[in-house]
This record gives sequence, C-alpha cells and structure tokens, in this order.
Amino acid sequence: MWRRGAMSRKRRTKVKDNHGLPPGTAIYVGEPREGGVHVRAFAYDVKGMVEHTHPTAREARALVSAGRVMWLDCDGVHDVPLVTELAEQFGIHPLAVEDVLNTRTRPKVDVFEGNIALLSMDMVSATGPDCELLVEHVSLLLGPGFVLSFQEGHAGDLFDPVRSRIRTGSGRVRSMGADYLLHALTDQVVDGYFGVVERLEERIDQLEGEALNRNVRDFPQRVYALKSDLGTIRRAVLPLREAVGRLLKGEVHLMSRNVDPYLRDLYDHVMQVLDIVDNDRERLSGVLELHLAVQAHSMNDVMKVLTIVSTVFIPLSWIAGVYGMNFDNIPELHWGYGYPFAMTLMLSVGGTMLGWFRYKGWL
Amino acid sequence: MWRRGAMSRKRRTKVKDNHGLPPGTAIYVGEPREGGVHVRAFAYDVKGMVEHTHPTAREARALVSAGRVMWLDCDGVHDVPLVTELAEQFGIHPLAVEDVLNTRTRPKVDVFEGNIALLSMDMVSATGPDCELLVEHVSLLLGPGFVLSFQEGHAGDLFDPVRSRIRTGSGRVRSMGADYLLHALTDQVVDGYFGVVERLEERIDQLEGEALNRNVRDFPQRVYALKSDLGTIRRAVLPLREAVGRLLKGEVHLMSRNVDPYLRDLYDHVMQVLDIVDNDRERLSGVLELHLAVQAHSMNDVMKVLTIVSTVFIPLSWIAGVYGMNFDNIPELHWGYGYPFAMTLMLSVGGTMLGWFRYKGWL
Amino acid sequence: MWRRGAMSRKRRTKVKDNHGLPPGTAIYVGEPREGGVHVRAFAYDVKGMVEHTHPTAREARALVSAGRVMWLDCDGVHDVPLVTELAEQFGIHPLAVEDVLNTRTRPKVDVFEGNIALLSMDMVSATGPDCELLVEHVSLLLGPGFVLSFQEGHAGDLFDPVRSRIRTGSGRVRSMGADYLLHALTDQVVDGYFGVVERLEERIDQLEGEALNRNVRDFPQRVYALKSDLGTIRRAVLPLREAVGRLLKGEVHLMSRNVDPYLRDLYDHVMQVLDIVDNDRERLSGVLELHLAVQAHSMNDVMKVLTIVSTVFIPLSWIAGVYGMNFDNIPELHWGYGYPFAMTLMLSVGGTMLGWFRYKGWL
Amino acid sequence: MWRRGAMSRKRRTKVKDNHGLPPGTAIYVGEPREGGVHVRAFAYDVKGMVEHTHPTAREARALVSAGRVMWLDCDGVHDVPLVTELAEQFGIHPLAVEDVLNTRTRPKVDVFEGNIALLSMDMVSATGPDCELLVEHVSLLLGPGFVLSFQEGHAGDLFDPVRSRIRTGSGRVRSMGADYLLHALTDQVVDGYFGVVERLEERIDQLEGEALNRNVRDFPQRVYALKSDLGTIRRAVLPLREAVGRLLKGEVHLMSRNVDPYLRDLYDHVMQVLDIVDNDRERLSGVLELHLAVQAHSMNDVMKVLTIVSTVFIPLSWIAGVYGMNFDNIPELHWGYGYPFAMTLMLSVGGTMLGWFRYKGWL
Amino acid sequence: MWRRGAMSRKRRTKVKDNHGLPPGTAIYVGEPREGGVHVRAFAYDVKGMVEHTHPTAREARALVSAGRVMWLDCDGVHDVPLVTELAEQFGIHPLAVEDVLNTRTRPKVDVFEGNIALLSMDMVSATGPDCELLVEHVSLLLGPGFVLSFQEGHAGDLFDPVRSRIRTGSGRVRSMGADYLLHALTDQVVDGYFGVVERLEERIDQLEGEALNRNVRDFPQRVYALKSDLGTIRRAVLPLREAVGRLLKGEVHLMSRNVDPYLRDLYDHVMQVLDIVDNDRERLSGVLELHLAVQAHSMNDVMKVLTIVSTVFIPLSWIAGVYGMNFDNIPELHWGYGYPFAMTLMLSVGGTMLGWFRYKGWL
Repeated sequence: MWRRGAMSRKRRTKVKDNHGLPPGTAIYVGEPREGGVHVRAFAYDVKGMVEHTHPTAREARALVSAGRVMWLDCDGVHDVPLVTELAEQFGIHPLAVEDVLNTRTRPKVDVFEGNIALLSMDMVSATGPDCELLVEHVSLLLGPGFVLSFQEGHAGDLFDPVRSRIRTGSGRVRSMGADYLLHALTDQVVDGYFGVVERLEERIDQLEGEALNRNVRDFPQRVYALKSDLGTIRRAVLPLREAVGRLLKGEVHLMSRNVDPYLRDLYDHVMQVLDIVDNDRERLSGVLELHLAVQAHSMNDVMKVLTIVSTVFIPLSWIAGVYGMNFDNIPELHWGYGYPFAMTLMLSVGGTMLGWFRYKGWL
Repeated sequence: MWRRGAMSRKRRTKVKDNHGLPPGTAIYVGEPREGGVHVRAFAYDVKGMVEHTHPTAREARALVSAGRVMWLDCDGVHDVPLVTELAEQFGIHPLAVEDVLNTRTRPKVDVFEGNIALLSMDMVSATGPDCELLVEHVSLLLGPGFVLSFQEGHAGDLFDPVRSRIRTGSGRVRSMGADYLLHALTDQVVDGYFGVVERLEERIDQLEGEALNRNVRDFPQRVYALKSDLGTIRRAVLPLREAVGRLLKGEVHLMSRNVDPYLRDLYDHVMQVLDIVDNDRERLSGVLELHLAVQAHSMNDVMKVLTIVSTVFIPLSWIAGVYGMNFDNIPELHWGYGYPFAMTLMLSVGGTMLGWFRYKGWL
Repeated sequence: MWRRGAMSRKRRTKVKDNHGLPPGTAIYVGEPREGGVHVRAFAYDVKGMVEHTHPTAREARALVSAGRVMWLDCDGVHDVPLVTELAEQFGIHPLAVEDVLNTRTRPKVDVFEGNIALLSMDMVSATGPDCELLVEHVSLLLGPGFVLSFQEGHAGDLFDPVRSRIRTGSGRVRSMGADYLLHALTDQVVDGYFGVVERLEERIDQLEGEALNRNVRDFPQRVYALKSDLGTIRRAVLPLREAVGRLLKGEVHLMSRNVDPYLRDLYDHVMQVLDIVDNDRERLSGVLELHLAVQAHSMNDVMKVLTIVSTVFIPLSWIAGVYGMNFDNIPELHWGYGYPFAMTLMLSVGGTMLGWFRYKGWL
Repeated sequence: MWRRGAMSRKRRTKVKDNHGLPPGTAIYVGEPREGGVHVRAFAYDVKGMVEHTHPTAREARALVSAGRVMWLDCDGVHDVPLVTELAEQFGIHPLAVEDVLNTRTRPKVDVFEGNIALLSMDMVSATGPDCELLVEHVSLLLGPGFVLSFQEGHAGDLFDPVRSRIRTGSGRVRSMGADYLLHALTDQVVDGYFGVVERLEERIDQLEGEALNRNVRDFPQRVYALKSDLGTIRRAVLPLREAVGRLLKGEVHLMSRNVDPYLRDLYDHVMQVLDIVDNDRERLSGVLELHLAVQAHSMNDVMKVLTIVSTVFIPLSWIAGVYGMNFDNIPELHWGYGYPFAMTLMLSVGGTMLGWFRYKGWL
Repeated sequence: MWRRGAMSRKRRTKVKDNHGLPPGTAIYVGEPREGGVHVRAFAYDVKGMVEHTHPTAREARALVSAGRVMWLDCDGVHDVPLVTELAEQFGIHPLAVEDVLNTRTRPKVDVFEGNIALLSMDMVSATGPDCELLVEHVSLLLGPGFVLSFQEGHAGDLFDPVRSRIRTGSGRVRSMGADYLLHALTDQVVDGYFGVVERLEERIDQLEGEALNRNVRDFPQRVYALKSDLGTIRRAVLPLREAVGRLLKGEVHLMSRNVDPYLRDLYDHVMQVLDIVDNDRERLSGVLELHLAVQAHSMNDVMKVLTIVSTVFIPLSWIAGVYGMNFDNIPELHWGYGYPFAMTLMLSVGGTMLGWFRYKGWL
C-alpha cells in the first residue's frame, strides 16, 4: 500500500530487502504494518455455507472438499509465517509466495505447478477531500476448489459485497465454482477503478471550467497532479488488461468455459477504464494547452496596451523637454501663442500616433 | 443518451448504481426518461410483411417463424420489466440484458449461449445551431430469425428508412435474412457518423479561414471544443471497427456468407470515418499552430515597432534634459545658434539610430 | 474530382445523396459534370489489337473472348445509365457499381461474386502555377479476360502511355493477360504520385532555403498548406498500400503468379512514396521549428539591444532632470565646473552600465 | 565499460578497430585495461562444490562432467589469448568470441552450433555522489553442463551473492542445472537495474519538489541529464526484454522447462524496469513542462507589474515636462494654486490609470 | 550517388526519365557520370583464385563453374549496354536490371525467376571537413555460384577489404560459397554506417557541450542539419533491416543455413545502427529543447534586470521633473534644505522599490 506522493520511496524498498537473495525467498516487501492479519474462511455450495474466523492453515485446508468452494480471505499480508504456512498446506510455489508478499509485484497472471494460478492486481482508491490515490496490492490464488485472496491493507471492505452475496446466497456466486469466485473478486477491483476515475473526471471538469480564467492559481500544478494520478491508474490497469486477456485465451485451465461470458464482460470493463484514462490524458493536455494560450493572449493584450501608452507619451515628453531647454534664444518661447502651439503640437503628434496604431489594428 | 458537456457526470452514474451488485443484474443505467417505450414488431418475408404496434413479449415471440424475419424495434430502454420479459421470451443471457440496459456499455460484439449475438453501438448526432453532440446507445440482438433493436432515446427516426424499405419492399431487405437486417440497421448508424463529421468539418473549414486573422476571438477555445467533439466520435467509432471486424472474421455464426460484401462495405465506411476523424485532428492541430504562429508574429511586429519608437526618443529626451539643466555656465546655452545646434544634434542622433535599425533589418 | 481547398465541402455530398438508401444503389456521387463520357474498347493479344470508340455495353461484352484481353476504358463516370448497363453485361455486383459511381470511396481492393475484383484508387495531380492538388477517383474492375477502367474526370491522358503501348505492341502488355493490364494501369497512377511529390519537394526545398531569413512572409501559412497537401497524398496512398498488399498476398485469384514480380515492384514504389511523404512531413516540422527558432532569436536580439539603449539613457535622463530642478540652492549649479562635472558624471554612469552589460554578456 | 558522458567516444572505438576485418576476428574492443583477468572456476552438484582460482583453459574444461555444473567466472575480458584458448577448449564459435570481446555488442541471445547459447547484457550501475552511470558488458555462455561468464570490469562483486550461495549451498542453485545458473546470474544483472532506477527516481523526486520554485538553478540541464540516464538504461533493457522473451519461447534448447517459472519471473522484472523507466520519462517531461510554465507565469507577473509602473509614470512625467517648459506665458505657472493644481492633475491621472488597470484585471 | 543537400532535385530525375515507360525498361537513372565503368571478375575456391580486369560479359559468365565462386565487381552503373549484356548472360530479370540501373531504388531484397536474388542498398559515407553525407546505391545479385555487385560511384574502395581477403585467402571467404560473399559485401556497407554515425555523434557531442552557452551561433540550424543527416541514414537502414530480416527468414533459397550465424550478426549490427540513430534523434531533440530553455532563461534574466532599472528610475525622473516645473510658487523650491530633501526623497523611493523587488524575489 502506498500513496502516490510516496511512490518512489516505497518501490525502492524492494531491491534493498531482496537484493542478492535467491528468487523465491519469502520476505514481506511493503509498508510496515502493525496489528494482526484478519483471516476468514468461507466454504460454500448451492445449498449452504460455513464461515470460520481466523482458522489455522490446516483447518482452512480441511475445508476444501469436492463439490464445495473454499475461499480463504486474508486481510493483510505482512504476517510472513502465516503466509508460508498456508503456502505449504495448499502447495503454493515459492515464487508465487514471493509475489504475494512483495506488494510491488507487477499485475500479472501466472500458472505454477500443481495447476495453481496467481492473479496479482493493484487496487486503486481515492481518499480524503483532495482525492489522494492509494494503491494496494491484491493477490488471488486459484487452485482446484479453492481461492486464496490476499489484500495489502485497510481495504478490507472491498470484498464485502462478495462476502454478503455468499452469506445470503444472492446472485450466481453460490451456484458456480471457484473460477467464478476469482472473477467476482477481480470484478470488485475493476469496479473500484471506475469510482476513482469518476473522481478524477470531476476534477478535470473543474479544470475545464476554469481554463478560460486567466487569473486562476496553480493551473499547471493541478494538471500535472492529475496527469500523475491518471498515470498511476494506467500503470495498474495496463498489465491487468494483459492478464485478463490471458485468462480469456484459456491459459489457465482451471477457468471453465461457462465463466467466459463473465470474463469477456470483465475485459470490456478493463478496456473501458483504459479508454477513459486515455481520453482524459488527452483532455488534460488540451486543457493545459488552452489555458496557456488564453493566458498568453491575455498577457499580450496587457503588454500591447501598456506599451502603446508609453510609446505615445515618450515623444510628447521629448517635445516638452525641448521647450524646457534653457537656450537663450529659442524663438518659440517668446511667441505670444507659444504655449498653445506646443500643446497643439503635442496633442496632434499623440493623436496621429494613436490613429496610426488603430489603423494598424494594434488597438 | 448524453450530451458532450455532460459527459463525465453521466458516466459516473454507472458505478454508483451498479457497484457491488453481481454482474448480470438488470438495472437501467442512463439518463432518467419519462414516457413509455415505443415498441413495434415487423415480421416479413419476400412476399409480405405484418407490423404490430406495442406487442407483448409473448406476441413478439410468436411472430418468429421459419422463413420469415422478425424485427422487434424498441424505442427507449428505460422500461426494465419490458426488457426482462423480452429477454425471457427470447432466451437472452443476463449479461446481454445488462449491456442493453446500461447505456454506458462500450461498443462491442458478443456472442452468448443460444447463438444470440449482441452488437452495441454509440450513435452520434449533432443538434442545435451550435452543433452540440448527442450520444445515444443502440443495441442490436441477433438470434435465429429475429433481430431485437433497442435505442436509448429520441432518435426513433434513425431507423425510419429501414422501416419504410420493409413496408414497401424496396431494396434487398425483404429478400434476405435477419443477418442482413442487422447490417442494414448498423449501416444507418454509420451513415449518421458521416453527417456529424460533415458538420464538424464545416466548422474546421471556418477556423481554417479565420486562422490568419490575428484578432479573432476564442480561437483556442473553439479548437479545443472541436477536438473534444472529434474525440467523442472517435471513441464511438474505434471500438465499432473492432466489432465489425469480428463480424467479418465470421465469429458470429448467424451471419451468412452472402452478407459478407455488405459487411466489407460497412467496414470500409467505418474506416473512412476514422480516416476523416484522424485527418481532422491533425488539421486542427495544424490550424491552431498556424494561428498561434500568426499571432506571435503579429505581436512581435507590434512590440518591435513600438520599442523602436521609444528607443529613438529616449536619447533625444536625454539631450533635451541636458540643455534644460540649470548650471550657471553651460556655454552652448548662450551661443547664438545654440537652439538650432541642439535640434540638429537631436535630429541627427535620431536619424542615425533609425538608419542603423533599418540597416540591421529591424524596421 | 475535387480540389484540396474544396475537400470538405465535396465529401459532404456523399451522405446527403445517399442517406437512407439501401447499400448498392446506383447513384453518381461527385462533382457535377457536363459533356459525355468518353469510352474506348481495346481487344488485343500478342498478334494484334482492335480499338472501338464509344461501343455499346453489348458490343464491349462481345469483344471478350478466350485468348484475348478486352480493356474498356471509360473517361468519366457521371453517366449512370451507361455504367449500370455495363454492370449488367459484365455481371458486376451492385456494391461494386456503387463504389465506381461514388467518387468518395476509400481506396481498396474487393472481390465480388463472379470472381470480379474491384480496385479503387485516388489519383493525385498537381495543376497550375501554385501547384493546387487535384484528386480524381479511378476504379478498375478485373474479370476473366477483361478490365473495365473508370476515371472521374479530365485526367484522360493518364493512361495514354498504356494505350500507345497496346497500339504499338511495345513493352510486355500485349503478350500478357488482363491481370498485367490491371498492374500497368495501377502503375501509371502510382507514377503520378511521384510527379506530385516532386513538385511538393521543390516547394519544401524553397522553404528550407528561406527558413533562416527572419523576414520572410507567410512562412507558417506555406508550411501549413504543404502539410495539408502531403496529408492529401498520404490519405490516397496509405489505403493503396493495403490494397496492393492484398493483391500480393494472392487474395485476388485472377492475378496469376507471373505478375508477382511486377506487383512487388509496384508495392515497393508505393512504399517509396510513403517513405518520401513521411520524410517530408518530418522535414516540414523541422523547417517550421527552425524558422520559428530563428525568428525568436532575432526578435530577442532586437529586444535586447533596444532595451539596453533605453536602460542606459533612463538613469542619465534622471541626472539631467535633477540638475534641471529649480531649487534655490543647488550648490553644483553654481560651481565653475558644474556643467563639465555633470556631463562627466553622466558619461561615466552610462559607460559603467555598458561595461557591466558587456561583462554580463548581454551585448 | 564506459561512462555515460564518454558514451559516443567509446562506441567509436568499435569500427576503428574492426573495420574491414572479417567477422569473427578475435579483437578486444573496449576501454584499455591494465592488470590481469581474474578467473575462478566452480564445479558443484547437490552434494558439494570445488573452487579453483586461475585455472588454465584445459583445467577448466576438465571440470565439466556429467551430473555436475561447471561455472567459469572471468572478471575482465581484455586478455584476448585467454579468451581464445577458452573458446577453443569449449568449442565456442568465433562470432560468439567476437561478441564476448566486443564490449559494444547489443544485448541479445544467440545460439551457435554445438548448442552453445550466448547471452549478452549491459549491466548498469550508478557510482559516485552525482550518480554517474557506468555501463559494463556481461556475456554468459551456456553449454551442456557449463556456464562461462565474462564481465568487462570492476564489477566483480556483482555475482558475489551467487558465488556465496554456491559455496554455502543455500537457495536452489546447487540442486539445479547450468540453465538455472544462467538465470541466477541474469537475475543479478536485472536486480542491479532496480538499484540504479531507484537512485534516478530519488533525483526525479527532488526535481518534482523543486519544480514550483522559479529561481532554481539548472533545472532544464538536470532534466536533460536524467533523461539521458533513463535513455541509457532503456537502451540496455529494451533488447534484454527481447532476449529473455526468446529464452521463454524455448529457442534455447539447453534451458529445461523447470526453469520456466524463474524465467517468467525474470521477464516480469525486466518489464517492470521498462514500466518504471517509461513512467519516469513521462514524469520528467511533465516536470519540465510544469517548471517552464511556472517560470513563464512568474516572469509574466514581473513584467506586468514593472510595465504598469512605467506606464503610470510616463504620462505624469510628461505633465511635469509641460510645466517645465520655458514659454513666456504659460498662464497656469502664475496662478496662485498652480502647483497644487498640477500635483492634483498628476495624481488623479495616475489614480485613474491604476483604477482602470485594476478594472481590467491587470493588477 | 547524391549529396544530401541535392536530395530532392536528384530523386526527381526518376519519374522524368521513367514516366510512361513500361516497367522493366533498362534506363540509367542517376547522377550523370563520365569515364568508364571499372569491372573486375574474381573466381576463387579454397585452393586459389583468379582475377580478371574488364572481362566481357561472356568471359565473366565462363568463369562460373561448379565448386568455385565467381564475383563480378562493377564500379559504376551508368554503362547501360554493359549492364544489359551482363543481364542477358546471367539470366537477370528485366525488373532486376531496372532496379540496378535506377539508383533511386528503395533498399530491398527480391527474388526473381531463375532463383536470382537482388539485394539493393544505400551506402552512406561522410566526406569533407563539414561531414557532408554522400549516398550511393549498391546492388548485389546472387545467383548459383556467382555474385554480381554494382556500385554507383567513386566508392570503389568500399569493397577493398573483401578483395584483399579473397586475394590473400585470409578469413573465411575463400572457404565458403557465394552466399557468404553476399554477406561479406553487405557487412562492409553496414560497417560503413557505423563510421558515419560516429562522425555525426561527434558533432552531437559538440552541440551537447555548447548547449548551455546562450551566445552560440546557429544552434538550431546545426541541430536541423544533423536531424536531416540522421534521417538520411535512417531511410537507408530501415528498409535494409526488413531486407536482412527476409534473408534470415530463409526467403532466399540460395542462402545456405551455415551462413545464418553471420546473417544474425549482420542483423544485430543493423539493429544497433537503428538504436543509435533513434537515440541520437532523441538526444538532438533534447539538446535543442535544453538550448532553447537556457536561452529563454537568459533572455528573461536580461529583460528582468533591465526592466527593473528602468522601472526604478522612471518615478525618480518624475520627481525631478516635478521640481523642474516653472510654477511661481512651489514652496519646496525655496526651502533651505529643499535640494537635500528632494535627493533624499528620490533615493528613498528608489531604495524602497529595490527593496520591494528583492522581497518579491525579482532580483
């Protein structure tokens, strides 16, 4: 789990902890967490369901049986012994364990021996009034008759709708297999992207409304921040598209064909998020371009008018300066109508200049 | 149905209504609508046709028979019970129903069990004097011997040409199957894009004509608005190309091979819309670039001339200032030809400067 | 046939005339034309040739025979009855007829039933002293033993070299089949692109030569016009590459394998036109960038020098102003050397400032 | 081994030394090195390992035996006779030898006769306080039962973790074959990229923090330097992705299928480096854009306020100049309230101008 | 052979000479050349070689025999009768002859009947102190047991290393077939690109060094020239990559599999040239961007300081002007401390302004 501003500091953790260790070493890489890991096990079929809180790995394993689906739902992955014990019980490959524990893993689908598939994702949520993005790692392990889900952090409520559908038996989830459960959980993550994207779009709408206001504060900064946020989402979704595409192509044998329409639906949603994000990136570029053009135009207006004022008065000042010279014999000074003459001269010079500027279209 | 300005607010509806619900839930997602849904059923073959207004789902189903084509033409999709009843009668998959009811679905082709294909599209039309874009969702369901069409809104007249061709028996539609009807309806939607693109091109032509006018108002704003509109069309057409491409590749078994030339024709039209849109986007960028270059050039001209005027007069003012000093003995002041000397000095300094500026090519 | 400036107005014709009509309706879409269509029929083999002027469709059809090639060469496509009559005689699919009559069709290859292939192209020529681009639609229909060619307009002389080669028996054309004739006609169109591209390159060379001249008029406008012209060519050639690629891949069964080297040659030429056009687009961007940089640099030079002049004289004017004040007792005014002192003061201030500017590298 | 600043000078070496020579000539191309090449040979299996320092080529060859893995670890490649002798003993193709000796080879995988595979890589490390990038060439040769590794330079400690894992038998390396060793060594190189990328990201974070400070020194220079560094990494990693992809596709027969999960893990890491680098490049562009926008905005603010000051005072100076003229009869000069009148006039003119500027929003 | 500056004029030659002629007509298209064509024939096998100067086509043909390789090495292609005679003797297809004679042919590989392959390339060399690029066309024809090579111009010494390797028997060339000779000659051309790219990189390094110097002359011009040069190389190498790729894929049956490692080596070199060229293009864009940013920054500095100087003195001048007015009763003028008061007033106004500017960070 990391916040966008803290991005680079966090990813750096990875290499420091891991470096030189053989691949497959079980080490937690991520934000230090306090408090225990919250574990729940669900075992269900069409007829009923049981739910255990904090089962041991062995108890969880025992819940797996033919004709039922077992879902082990872990909230938090920083408890390394727990995860390794689960891995042992369920026969998870060490590389898969490493990917679960390393919250910096790139979103992907991988199939390991024993026909166990790993789906890694990055959940994105927007928190706080200023819509700070929070990225949390979610790993799903699909084996025959079971799904293990691991979430990095506080996002425990993400899967609540699925939990309640299992408990109440509403929807299709109880009548279908573990592969459908994998889909249902992934669907929750993808639905979450829509919520974040909407909040970003609200902010882009706001920028669009302010783009013509040349005095707006911090416009480029806000565009930059939004672009970063869109980039964060894009980096989470782009590899997910690849991963769901591989599920669709049938590379994971545990996914049965009757989940296919749901996977295609999921794939369409992922594509839609990408469409929106790409469109928003273009909108942002356009909005910034527009704002800078408006500002430049307004600046030019200011400079032009002010420069014209100076330009008109400088020659007039020169004329006044001439008649302020102290030469003994400047004949004009002693004319009866010298002063009106000078004033007329100055006004007509100024008027001529203004007329010429207007003729040139500079006014 | 949504207007471009209202884009982001509308799409947001989706997640709010849908979130946490299992996929395939039948909920209308779109602009709230009043008034009933207008339903018509056509059943025709080469020899004749019957037309029912507001048939029940059961009546519509009964119209399907071997050797005839049944077209159920629904104008409006906000009547959820009607749609679910139809789905039940015609054996439509819940996910397809969800896509029909959700007017934010991405354009696509999908084949569901029972060999029923869904083609989702976004119709775009330009309304009003300022050419506001209106996007409406159109869903076509193709089954054996029938087509169900659902349009979001007021665009009921979009399919009028097809209706009258069925009624009068002109063209090829009565002598061909349901697959040709699917093509004919899609063709109407694609033809609609051309109309919109033409209106946008008129506005780009206008911008092109005004690009050299440096005083034009709101140029960047208008370019931005047009770019957004082109983006809207592009987002509707790009996934449609994919969808028609899948039809062409024969992924929908209900499409018989003798519709192929028509599909290729359709595909060429979609490609042509994309060509035009992409070309127009480039034109817009070029036009804005040109306008900004022209404006910058004109601004430079103004600044240069005005600066030169100031620059010439400032030294002259200094000379006038010198001879306006009140020192007791400034010999020049008492010369007989002091004043003409000073004037000559000033004029020659000014003339020299102007000559030098002209020599440097700054004038 | 349309001129570049008139581009968008013309394409708009399409939808207006066609809208709501079933696909395959025979309607002429293009610039209104007066005067008749010029039709010639050639029938030839290695031994000899006959040429008919203005044959009827039936006469033309009768010229097709085993062992000979018949070329029906129509100059102008606005005579709809003639085209439909020909289509009937030669068994052309209605969609192919629509593509021939619609001069806005996208360049493409299509194979219709009866093994008749359609190759649509956009010929581009440069006319007039200011090199206005003229786009004309050319359609070639290849059937067993015959080729029908339709050109939109006045470009009748485009195929003259092929006609004279047929008449005189020079080259390979008389000893090969209808597929080679298709190639030979396409080759003329592609050769035409080279001529146009050359004329555009002359104009780019000219711009390149003027790019360093900061006073050149209308530079951005001319770059924009050239970019539009290159875009026009690109839009004609890009789909042609696709079409020739499909010929090469053997999708048109009437093309025999011994024409392959010629098709590859043609394909290479099409690629070369695209290479040149893409390179020219980059050159144009570079040239404009260079010109704007040169102009900005020159503008900066002007502003800098002029600003420095003002900056030096403004403090001097202030000093002069100080000694022009009318206070009763300004001691300096009454010194014997007051005036030389003031002048020295001013000159040394001015000199110091100039020296400092030079030290800072601003001069 | 070359430093980034010295990049172009170094690569130039290649052609100078090689030109005109037949391909496959054994010539060292790289930075001249002093001192000997450090060679170590490891032979190990699950049960134990032996390590020889500075073995002869013949001794090294003798260490290869069934059931064991031999790793010949050469630190430095400038000792041409040693490399050629090794090549002879191990049956390495001359082109592979050339690639090992030429430290400018592009990263790649190649399989030569005798089933010997070559994997060339560019290791990148960051040294010194200013994070200068150091690129070193690493070549791995995989044959049946052996791996030969050649590193260009001082980076001898890169493979230390693998050496110690072999010595202590920790991890998986001792229980697997030569193909796993190849993976383990490559993994070290890829892990190294993460370290470098982290240091670059620290510097980008720093730039991001300074972007809003308009007075920061050398901002564009630092962005440029970072972009160059990212380009250096990208050029090393992009071909490596291709190479690892070919390993994954099974083009190297010596790689057994049970190394596949590790290769996929490696591939994911390479992709992740590329993701980060591409994201960083976008961030850098955005940061520079932001900084320039902030600077332009601040510059505009300065110019606007200063210009307004001048503009207000220039007309006032003109008024003062008018009443400083020496005409004999300027009536105002002799009024009792002439002076207060003039001051009031000036202040009200100035005040009016300021008010107007504020009304126009320029203040 | 053409120089870069003369590029567009030269390519224009093509169409003028060729237009309307049937494809495959033997006409020399290129720079007019004087002097004869230099022809040499080599026939060699592992045991020995013979070399003929200026053999007739028939003599050359007679040198081809089983077990030997014949290389006909033509320096200059403007002697059309010679080339056609050779074509006749060696059974070259007319289209291949046209490609040899037309020095504007796009680089490509083509296989003609009789199993004769044509490899067209554009050699690039840098001449003169200002590194003018010279592009020369090179055609290689590979038949069973022979290679015909045609070079456009003075680049006769390009193949000298191969000639001397044949004469002395060094390297592999004498022990391998005609396919290896084709590779060896192509390798020389590709090696030549490295030399040119190095010289361009030297110039880019120089620009990089000067980018921070804001007074450098002609920076944008030099960047533009280098970009053009890189474009020239790119246009030569990009199609060559395609061509070598087709050789690698085995599309030319005369290339035996034991040349494959050499072809892959060649392909890697071509890729490396493209990598370098693409990287250099990015560097150039970055360098220009950097230079313009530095210049703008420096310009802003100048303008800011100078504007501040004016801004401070203009109000002071106004004060001086006020006390230079000639009103009868300005009380301050008659105070004893009037003059010191005015000076103090002016200095404190000036100081306050400077202080405020510094407080705002504008100094």
